[in-house]
Amino acid sequence: MYFLSDNTVGASPKILDAIVKANAGHAGSYGADAWTERVEKQLRGFFECDLDVFLVTTGTAANALAAAAICPPWGTLITHRESHVIDDECGAPEFFMGGAKIVGLPGIGGKITPEAVHAHFEAEPGGTRRPPIKGLSIAQGTEFGLAYSPQEIAALSAAIRPHGLKLHMDGARFSNALIAQGCSPAEMTWKSGVDVLSLGGTKNGCLMAEAVIFFDRTLAEDFRFRRKRGGQTLSKQRLIAAQFEAFLDQDHWRELASHANAMARRLADGLTGIPGIRLGWAQQINEVFPIMPRAMWGYLTAQGVKCYDWSETSLAPENAVAPDEVILRFVTSFETHADEIDGVVARARDFAKG
Amino acid sequence: MYFLSDNTVGASPKILDAIVKANAGHAGSYGADAWTERVEKQLRGFFECDLDVFLVTTGTAANALAAAAICPPWGTLITHRESHVIDDECGAPEFFMGGAKIVGLPGIGGKITPEAVHAHFEAEPGGTRRPPIKGLSIAQGTEFGLAYSPQEIAALSAAIRPHGLKLHMDGARFSNALIAQGCSPAEMTWKSGVDVLSLGGTKNGCLMAEAVIFFDRTLAEDFRFRRKRGGQTLSKQRLIAAQFEAFLDQDHWRELASHANAMARRLADGLTGIPGIRLGWAQQINEVFPIMPRAMWGYLTAQGVKCYDWSETSLAPENAVAPDEVILRFVTSFETHADEIDGVVARARDFAKG
Amino acid sequence: MYFLSDNTVGASPKILDAIVKANAGHAGSYGADAWTERVEKQLRGFFECDLDVFLVTTGTAANALAAAAICPPWGTLITHRESHVIDDECGAPEFFMGGAKIVGLPGIGGKITPEAVHAHFEAEPGGTRRPPIKGLSIAQGTEFGLAYSPQEIAALSAAIRPHGLKLHMDGARFSNALIAQGCSPAEMTWKSGVDVLSLGGTKNGCLMAEAVIFFDRTLAEDFRFRRKRGGQTLSKQRLIAAQFEAFLDQDHWRELASHANAMARRLADGLTGIPGIRLGWAQQINEVFPIMPRAMWGYLTAQGVKCYDWSETSLAPENAVAPDEVILRFVTSFETHADEIDGVVARARDFAKG
Amino acid sequence: MYFLSDNTVGASPKILDAIVKANAGHAGSYGADAWTERVEKQLRGFFECDLDVFLVTTGTAANALAAAAICPPWGTLITHRESHVIDDECGAPEFFMGGAKIVGLPGIGGKITPEAVHAHFEAEPGGTRRPPIKGLSIAQGTEFGLAYSPQEIAALSAAIRPHGLKLHMDGARFSNALIAQGCSPAEMTWKSGVDVLSLGGTKNGCLMAEAVIFFDRTLAEDFRFRRKRGGQTLSKQRLIAAQFEAFLDQDHWRELASHANAMARRLADGLTGIPGIRLGWAQQINEVFPIMPRAMWGYLTAQGVKCYDWSETSLAPENAVAPDEVILRFVTSFETHADEIDGVVARARDFAKG
Repeated sequence: MYFLSDNTVGASPKILDAIVKANAGHAGSYGADAWTERVEKQLRGFFECDLDVFLVTTGTAANALAAAAICPPWGTLITHRESHVIDDECGAPEFFMGGAKIVGLPGIGGKITPEAVHAHFEAEPGGTRRPPIKGLSIAQGTEFGLAYSPQEIAALSAAIRPHGLKLHMDGARFSNALIAQGCSPAEMTWKSGVDVLSLGGTKNGCLMAEAVIFFDRTLAEDFRFRRKRGGQTLSKQRLIAAQFEAFLDQDHWRELASHANAMARRLADGLTGIPGIRLGWAQQINEVFPIMPRAMWGYLTAQGVKCYDWSETSLAPENAVAPDEVILRFVTSFETHADEIDGVVARARDFAKG
Repeated sequence: MYFLSDNTVGASPKILDAIVKANAGHAGSYGADAWTERVEKQLRGFFECDLDVFLVTTGTAANALAAAAICPPWGTLITHRESHVIDDECGAPEFFMGGAKIVGLPGIGGKITPEAVHAHFEAEPGGTRRPPIKGLSIAQGTEFGLAYSPQEIAALSAAIRPHGLKLHMDGARFSNALIAQGCSPAEMTWKSGVDVLSLGGTKNGCLMAEAVIFFDRTLAEDFRFRRKRGGQTLSKQRLIAAQFEAFLDQDHWRELASHANAMARRLADGLTGIPGIRLGWAQQINEVFPIMPRAMWGYLTAQGVKCYDWSETSLAPENAVAPDEVILRFVTSFETHADEIDGVVARARDFAKG
Repeated sequence: MYFLSDNTVGASPKILDAIVKANAGHAGSYGADAWTERVEKQLRGFFECDLDVFLVTTGTAANALAAAAICPPWGTLITHRESHVIDDECGAPEFFMGGAKIVGLPGIGGKITPEAVHAHFEAEPGGTRRPPIKGLSIAQGTEFGLAYSPQEIAALSAAIRPHGLKLHMDGARFSNALIAQGCSPAEMTWKSGVDVLSLGGTKNGCLMAEAVIFFDRTLAEDFRFRRKRGGQTLSKQRLIAAQFEAFLDQDHWRELASHANAMARRLADGLTGIPGIRLGWAQQINEVFPIMPRAMWGYLTAQGVKCYDWSETSLAPENAVAPDEVILRFVTSFETHADEIDGVVARARDFAKG
Repeated sequence: MYFLSDNTVGASPKILDAIVKANAGHAGSYGADAWTERVEKQLRGFFECDLDVFLVTTGTAANALAAAAICPPWGTLITHRESHVIDDECGAPEFFMGGAKIVGLPGIGGKITPEAVHAHFEAEPGGTRRPPIKGLSIAQGTEFGLAYSPQEIAALSAAIRPHGLKLHMDGARFSNALIAQGCSPAEMTWKSGVDVLSLGGTKNGCLMAEAVIFFDRTLAEDFRFRRKRGGQTLSKQRLIAAQFEAFLDQDHWRELASHANAMARRLADGLTGIPGIRLGWAQQINEVFPIMPRAMWGYLTAQGVKCYDWSETSLAPENAVAPDEVILRFVTSFETHADEIDGVVARARDFAKG
């Protein structure tokens, strides 16, 4: 019963098979290969627009390179104060941006609101005391399992445009958020004002496949040099491209992410039926954040259930964690079995019954 | 007849198989997996010493991170003036070093001599006009197909120690150089004074496997943070580790590199038997640099032979390329067939016969 | 009645005279001059220890270079969440540190406590998610006019040493804090654990004179290169050195700062005697932070009193600003006249009387 | 007889007096003062165009900030291979550019030719192996005392425009070069295609006054943030502005530089009349580069003549230094006396006579 993350499993059989098939023969290095070309075409279809694609090896690199594309070294990037780019990437965004500042904004469930953006700009002192704010980075889904609706994204975009900011979306769990929102990829990105997207494949069934996608193609100018300089241009790039090709082919991504989300839903439904358990934030993607008695967590751990305890800072005030409670994060994946879910729920119920 | 590079083929069957096998099941992310642990142990055996290993995704990243580990932002890294780190990595070393300066030294065949190092230090003006020299980076083999002997490496190490420099070896073709020298991995590295090594797997049969290896382990302090910040810490690191495991297992690397070197030897032997062809530099690893009539190159190209023309700056003066000549680079790989070699030689001979 | 800052006046007559006198004749450039040599000797006497001194042109440069000397590009610098280095230097510390992260800690009146440091370390997640914390920067005095006692500084030093951090002191108003504490320069710095100090002269009677002073001299290694690379090595450095020489000569700094502090005391005493006015934080240095009715501020402004309204985030909870109140910052300088002080107090009293 | 540099003397009496006068009273900090406003107006008149001005403290900072304004972190700046920005600024340009690469081009007397620019572009390999070339930096005058004519500058500008480069002029000795060329400031800058200029005052009679001047004002966007972040925004900026005001007032700069140039001419004329002495490069500005017998230099040194020996790499081949010869640099300043010149010449003549 392993729910630590969705990056602890390998690739889906179909994607692994694509790697094996792509291995044969000569291919141009550094992206001059047929797989890369096909993936670029697929992504234009997927997003229903022209765009620029750059394959990279990690989500951290994708986010950091994308941040650098919208925020110069002398600028400020705003994001949620508990976002992955602030808290979990060991300063990679600052490094790739060349020393720019990242400033965190508050918000329930890891989501930034237009009101928070407005308040932040109103509090700016003017003059040259602070590096000018150049970009906003949001996570879809957030560190707390929530997904912005296209309307919410569009409202954020509207809030930042008068200030000249560009909008980046960290889509490490893009597939899961897309299914949660039930909209099209285009609606969730460029139609709502997203300029650049980190599209994650690794957490949804690839072994290592991430992409930086530019809807505002002027931002992609020189990006091939930035990627190379960032150590992210693979000589045998077909390794990544083949994964994305299989990922996108016949909506394989949807199959994978739907399963992961469904497993999370099953877990959320199961747990919330048990006295003493409530959710920190609504279950929307492939993550569940139950608040439960600390003793129950101890019991589950002893029974072999693996998950992380989580930050409670971003909870709504009325949903605060009591001293004898704990908030946990369960992540499901394309490989999670219903049996595992049911096992967790059964054990929690056992404990609740005493 | 494809000799553009050794990074245009996929992985060897054994290494590909290792990827497939490693794909199953849960494994700790970011390197907390059994494959990584085994590879670290293997490498300690391979090099006959304790050491620190960090797996990364590209040779550019390996070199740039290693350079940063021996040269601070306010320092200077010296290397050959036509080295890969100066000419072919799009400024990645400067980026990862945080703006340090790279200064190129002259030398035949891409090799730096102790004399060149001494001369460089003697010409330094003192004061604070120049960033202090902190590291030396050498390539094994060089951009011109040569490999340093352990004695040559030790002499370089002796030349830089009084100035406090650290020594980095770019081992993108480490396997090929090792076979060429016929010495042990230890003799070619730490026993000769190498502090940090970029060990390449990608060009010798892996799909994407590079490692930064610290013999001077004090340099590895904080390196896990630097790697993460550099976007080079894979969540599913077993993807790289499994390749290295197969690469090292039962001297598979030797099998691969020996074949590639033998194919280069076959090509060198074949070509130098043809009137009008001589070698720019001795064939030592899996590269051959014939100087031939420009018209012959045109003929070979028309016949489907693919290779690059190459820089002549690093030739010995007595070996200069005539106006009607051209110098070419042929790279062989673990997959190169003797038939391909013989095909090139036969066509060159045909042309020479008129 | 001008209280916007202590950097809006020129130099004291004695210091200006020193510039004029130093102007004559040839002198070695880039610090190889007699003034620089004398100042270094003076500072060793002033601090009663051996040390390394580097003169620079701005407080921002002094802080940023000092921060870089204690925190590498892949590190984290902790400081107060409303410190000058976070909020007012336009990202200079991030730039000079090469992209390191700055994280702000809470604390009343801009002061960090050992408890806040402990709490911060306890909340760190471990692993490689965050850049390792390498340094602590404190301001003496703070952005809210408070000065740490030597005991407080020593307690902070004790709190960070087990974690390997180095301690920087931003001493833009060092003279004022020193007089407020009534201790020796040595007691307020290295005897309490300060490793590197930004010593400000500009705000206390110089035209442009700042120094980075290393008590931990191992940190000063290579610093001359860092300073030059940072554009901070003046060819005619005697311009700065002559100012510091006069500043230190016969305790001129004490004369200047004592006056400024006394004027602040006079203002604090005058204002707190008026109904409706209280201080946000105790008056300790040359700054006064009265909380007063917003209407009173309007009246003072109309009467020609110039000062800034200020942040209330760092107030003690019991001292919160009411909706109809405002908190202001008045800064006095070596040139402030008692008449100006009395003028402000009289006008405030007039308003209070109605 | 002191000819080591033109930065070893203080300020001219008029400029020193301006500092003294500017010292009195309150003034807005960080450039919000009347002196700064007046200087900006003066410079618009001086250059006969609209422009943006940013005062800074060192020539190194001016060049480094200007370089950063025309070349992004992922770009390449080309300049002469023995230029000040490559050889004498301790990596400041690389630092301020954020890790960009500087590549040196050859050329006699420190001057770059359109042919050298063309040759460099032709040799570029394409692809992403090298950071894209974004800017050209030339020195007016060069490290070897030569000044480009407006026609030469325009030809360089024409050579780079098709490649999208911007043109920076390092004008540390702008005044001297301007007098040497006998043209207008406008002709020597924007009318010839210069986009951004480092205008030096320090070497021509100021204590510390440098300016970055943007003729292409789009490049100045955000530059106030970059300057502040670079630690170059003085709180009491009137210190610099007052110097420039006096420097520009009534052509004081011309008076100072004409004298320095005339002294250099006197030295050049005197020395070239002596058997065994010839000039390395023509005397054009306030520098003289005699090639003389090594023994003569020994004699002069013993007689108290102070100057540097200099690099011979940039000599025309036909003017090479013989083994028993040496090439020297003499720099004259606004304070150099004719007596000093005559003293050097007399001693050289004495030696020549035996």
